[in-house]
Amino acid sequence: MSVARIAVVAGDGIGTEVTAQARKVIEAVLPDTEFNDYDLGARFYNRTGEVLPQAIEEELARHDAILLGAIGDPSVPPGVLERGLLLKLRFDFDQYVNLRPSKLWPGTTSPLAGIKPGEIDMVVVREGTEGLYVGAGGVLHKDTPAEIATEESLNTRYGVERVIRDAFARAQRRERRHLTLVHKTNVLTKAGSLWARTFAAVAAEFPEVTTEYQHVDAASMFMVSNPQRFDVVVTDNLFGDIITDIAAAVTGGIGMAASGSVNPERKYPSTFEPVHGSAPDIAGQGIADPAAAILSASLLLEHLGHDDEARRVSEAVAAEVASRTAGASLRTDEVGDRVAAAL
Amino acid sequence: MSVARIAVVAGDGIGTEVTAQARKVIEAVLPDTEFNDYDLGARFYNRTGEVLPQAIEEELARHDAILLGAIGDPSVPPGVLERGLLLKLRFDFDQYVNLRPSKLWPGTTSPLAGIKPGEIDMVVVREGTEGLYVGAGGVLHKDTPAEIATEESLNTRYGVERVIRDAFARAQRRERRHLTLVHKTNVLTKAGSLWARTFAAVAAEFPEVTTEYQHVDAASMFMVSNPQRFDVVVTDNLFGDIITDIAAAVTGGIGMAASGSVNPERKYPSTFEPVHGSAPDIAGQGIADPAAAILSASLLLEHLGHDDEARRVSEAVAAEVASRTAGASLRTDEVGDRVAAAL
Ligand SMILES: CC(C)[C@H](C(=O)O)[C@@H](O)C(=O)O
Ligand SMILES: CC(C)[C@H](C(=O)O)[C@@H](O)C(=O)O
Repeated sequence: MSVARIAVVAGDGIGTEVTAQARKVIEAVLPDTEFNDYDLGARFYNRTGEVLPQAIEEELARHDAILLGAIGDPSVPPGVLERGLLLKLRFDFDQYVNLRPSKLWPGTTSPLAGIKPGEIDMVVVREGTEGLYVGAGGVLHKDTPAEIATEESLNTRYGVERVIRDAFARAQRRERRHLTLVHKTNVLTKAGSLWARTFAAVAAEFPEVTTEYQHVDAASMFMVSNPQRFDVVVTDNLFGDIITDIAAAVTGGIGMAASGSVNPERKYPSTFEPVHGSAPDIAGQGIADPAAAILSASLLLEHLGHDDEARRVSEAVAAEVASRTAGASLRTDEVGDRVAAAL
Repeated sequence: MSVARIAVVAGDGIGTEVTAQARKVIEAVLPDTEFNDYDLGARFYNRTGEVLPQAIEEELARHDAILLGAIGDPSVPPGVLERGLLLKLRFDFDQYVNLRPSKLWPGTTSPLAGIKPGEIDMVVVREGTEGLYVGAGGVLHKDTPAEIATEESLNTRYGVERVIRDAFARAQRRERRHLTLVHKTNVLTKAGSLWARTFAAVAAEFPEVTTEYQHVDAASMFMVSNPQRFDVVVTDNLFGDIITDIAAAVTGGIGMAASGSVNPERKYPSTFEPVHGSAPDIAGQGIADPAAAILSASLLLEHLGHDDEARRVSEAVAAEVASRTAGASLRTDEVGDRVAAAL
């Protein structure tokens, strides 16, 4: 396998701190990896007025993957960096599989009573390039009593089928081989029917995968009352945004929540990042937990075909987290060092 | 006050059983109430092929409120009754305030560890007549690889402002006087901006109400990690559908979840119903818990201006639930009798 070229967008706040640990861990398992740093995010925006210059995006495109920390700062108007960088990369790099595993790891505690580590273990495959995220819609008669605002969800058979097929393939590789489609077919009859018909068609190719359908409201309730029932979940962009945050919450919050915005064909680089934000309140103190960032690095390794390294990294993170003393203070770099040393 | 005229749509499955108790309780506090029964739902649909004949809808319109049990049965294709009856009434009767209180009552247990009764007490005011529920959108090239399906969210200043004002007024009447707007302004920029600007404008009329904004994904997480922080929440139709089910889940499931689809001006009747469904699996056994249906009757009484009776009913339900012996089997009519007797 050739040397991996990884673009590092450490970003703002604790993003830089946790990304340094993720990088350290990748270096421990793949010492030849080439890393190139890109200074993007709030600092860059405040300095230049630009979010993602085209020349930089073209450079990013010449990498195998992007390791992202977190972007955002109160000094930047909400939405600017999210749309101009995170969402732009998802669309421009055709990252149509938004991958969000949620696992209750040993050493972590669910806010749900009576649920023990190991009992929750799911992956949500969220569509990343369609739906309400396309930005379609408009505003008429703004700031008058006659104002109307529309948002349009665009769904194609092409886009729906490829993400559903990816989810089936992932379910097929897991032990339980169960896939749940989440939508709102009883109200969103047009998109819902497209998703449901496509799901049924692709299911025929995967006879070993058992399937289930749930409305998004019911699924949101089950995420709390019975999260054990989920194995792989496939859903649209907006529903995925919501239910993955519930899944993160029931597995102890975003401390361990990793994500990948994946272009499975590797025609474009995929982005891997912790679900947490830049946390300006604790930035610069060296106390941010890098577990989610390192688990995102594990997803990156798996995406690039380094399955063995990916598994070793996630096991090392799990062991480190399980060995923590409750109440003991945590140092970002110590966690990274311990995980790297274990590899 | 004149005699209240209530249309009873008991519906299917346990709907008929729990509605009988809700009616019994209303009779206990307002003996003169006129009740008229309407046989609608799965049985009616299977017999007639119709969901809501226009003549019946016109009769319903001549009532002060509708007491609904639950509709739905596996024999009816999903969506038919929901859209043809529940949603149709919301739209035709301009029920733009969809009211969903969530409270952790004494005697009930949250699935969240360490949360005690009384600690969760919120009301979600969900918009009921706009957004993605309007049914706009379409399908092109159906069942071909070129198929596209769209769903359109329609939001008007008129519709957004009236529900936000209603939510502020409700927050103003509560002890904590706190209102949270939930939306996804960083992605749904058109509708999000309309909601955010309207919220800010109406806030100026209610200086005593403290306000907060949360993205729907963050709010969904907080519903699990910190539900105590919510007092009144206002949000759009689809987000409201989802977060009220999370709110129901963290307050112990839909056993105590009441709802009202309200036309505040009382130009049209408002519908009051438990959030739970018709539960065909336990129907006919007399073991369904009527608490949510009776609490919905309490919302109905409050809507009709009988604040004192409404309070007495909800207190009687709370006392009955608190007095239950853990593990003891429950009889639907006994619960209704006990609540009625306490009034
Ligand atoms: C930052 C925001 C645009 C983004 C989204 O909505 O997808 C985030 O919530 C996520 O889940 O990655
Ligand atoms: C049955 C369905 C159409 C309905 C909705 O989506 O509003 C239900 O989930 C609810 O919350 O009342």
